[in-house]
Formats: sequence, C-alpha cells, structure tokens
Amino acid sequence: MSYEEKRMEKGLIQVYTGDGKGKTTAAIGLAVRAKGQGLNVGYIYFHKEPETWNYGEIGVLEKLGVGIFGFAKKHPHFYKDVTSEEMRKECLAGIEFIKKLYSENNYDILILDEINISVRDGFLKEEEVLAIMEKKPEGLELVLTGRGATEKIIEKADLVSRIEEIKHPYNSGIERRRGIEY
Amino acid sequence: MSYEEKRMEKGLIQVYTGDGKGKTTAAIGLAVRAKGQGLNVGYIYFHKEPETWNYGEIGVLEKLGVGIFGFAKKHPHFYKDVTSEEMRKECLAGIEFIKKLYSENNYDILILDEINISVRDGFLKEEEVLAIMEKKPEGLELVLTGRGATEKIIEKADLVSRIEEIKHPYNSGIERRRGIEY
Repeated sequence: MSYEEKRMEKGLIQVYTGDGKGKTTAAIGLAVRAKGQGLNVGYIYFHKEPETWNYGEIGVLEKLGVGIFGFAKKHPHFYKDVTSEEMRKECLAGIEFIKKLYSENNYDILILDEINISVRDGFLKEEEVLAIMEKKPEGLELVLTGRGATEKIIEKADLVSRIEEIKHPYNSGIERRRGIEY
Repeated sequence: MSYEEKRMEKGLIQVYTGDGKGKTTAAIGLAVRAKGQGLNVGYIYFHKEPETWNYGEIGVLEKLGVGIFGFAKKHPHFYKDVTSEEMRKECLAGIEFIKKLYSENNYDILILDEINISVRDGFLKEEEVLAIMEKKPEGLELVLTGRGATEKIIEKADLVSRIEEIKHPYNSGIERRRGIEY
C-alpha cells in the first residue's frame, strides 16, 4: 500500500486531559502506533525542557522519524526570571508554526503536548486554540494533551479521554523516577 | 551510566483502567520512555491477535528491542469455536511465563496488556493476578492495563489511572481506523 493510500480521509480531534498519569504517554503511544502504520507524525510540545529534564521518549521518537518541535520551554513556575509576556510570545510562535504545518500538509497526526496548560496558565487564549482545532486540514488527526482542557475545547473535540488519578505514589512521597516519569 | 546503575531499586505497580481510549497507548508510551532511558522492557499481551489485526505498535516496539509475548490471543467473543477452558489454559500459561521472567529478572518493566480483561471475563482468577503483583521482583515496574480492574487489584497497586470516556466517535458511528485504533 502506498503512503498516499494510507493517509486518512478524515482525521479527528482527540483530547487527553485530567489529573492522572498517562496523558503524554498515551499520545506517545499513538505516535508509535501511527509510525508503525507508515503515517507521518509531528510532536509539538509546550512547557517542557528536554535539554534539562532528559525525557526518555524524545530521542526514541526522533529515531522513529517523528518530527519534534518545542515551544515555550521554560515555564515561569520553574524559572522566576521568565515573564508571562515572553511565554505568550513563544506560545504564539507555536501557534504560527502549527499553521505553517497545516499549509504544508505533510503530517497525518500532530500531537500538541501540554497545549491545554498554555490556555490554563493564560499564555494562550482559548479562542486561539479553538481556531487551531477549527482550521486543521481535513485528513489530519490532531491530539491535544494537558490537564484542564476547557469546556469549549472538549466540545469541539471528537474524542475526549479524561485520566483520573485514583492513586499516585507522589502522594506518599516517592520521587520522580528515570524511565518512568521522564 | 552503566545499565546496572540505571536499574531501579524499587519498582512500583501501575494500573491503567476505565472505559476511555488511552490505556494500551499509555503503556506503549511508557515502554518507549523506558527504552529511551536504557531500561529493559517486556510487553505481554492478552486477548489480542496481531497476526490478524496488524497492530501498528507491535513492530515498532520489537524494533526498539522490547520483548514481545502474546497469550490467549483468540478471545471467544470473536471466535465462537474457542472455549473458555482453552482461554483459561492459555492465560495460565501466561501467568507461568511471567513467573519465569520474574525468576530470570532481566526486565526492568513488564507490561501486562489487557490482563484485567482476563479476570473480568473469568479466564483468570483475581487471586492469580494478585499473586503476580505480590511476587514481583523488588526492582521491577509492573504495568497492568484493561478496563474493569477489580477493587483488590486497585488496592494492591501503587499508581492507578482511570481513563474515563468523555466523548468517543465510535458512538457516532466512526469505524476503527488504521494508525489510530490499531
């Protein structure tokens, strides 16, 4: 089957939200599945800094041929010298970049990892993300992750999974572990 | 850092359950993350038949060096000529295999994909899975997936995420899609 035959006629919009563990990993699993079927996948992350935090998944996705792009990496929560204005500017650059990818139309799946956080923390306006959802190319599957997805984002999505935290070891004082949390 | 230094001192038990999409993909994402950190990952699936259904993730995980093992592949729901007795026998072979892996202790993470279904559908007894949870080697991270995790399984786990289906396009008649659902 040629790549052209594999492309989807109609892509949907998926949202992974909620307070439980598994949102980003579910999106990574989707990326792996799609690569296994010969589709083109782009992974765009917000508010993460792999240069410092050494996420295990990033190098593997890259090796699998997933396009990797990061925006607004230094969240003010961790970096006191980063302003909200800078964050907004960088998030908007991310939005512009997504629009550029739309116009090139080379990807079958785009994962917007933690973009819900950009809205929750006021760096992006809800309507800016809604516009990205609205304008996606017909055949593109769009995947948004991050806790705190707004009602309107949920309304505009086709598939929404909320990951609820039933039990989490952080609550009993266990630290962030290599290979599991990053 | 040598492989021996990377191994975890204390592995936990994670459970991904609930009716929403994202349980298996979250486990696959975990496998990818762990491989990216140089850990050894085994993926043991129940009630899935990649030979027929062509799951995109399996080939990619294999290429990444994840150990892949399948048990009780033909669920009677899809194969009317398969008996519950056969299923139970094959699930028990899976349990024995897991114990063998425990004794060899070569893996850092073992994913038991859809094992909750084996219990839900009566092919495994709850106590057989509880025993597997109890006997795991100290440094091993165990990940159980599948809807319908029992209360006792949840109780024995360290981290539990329940994936709730807020919206699903199947409900509006969209079919299983290559690269997304498999």
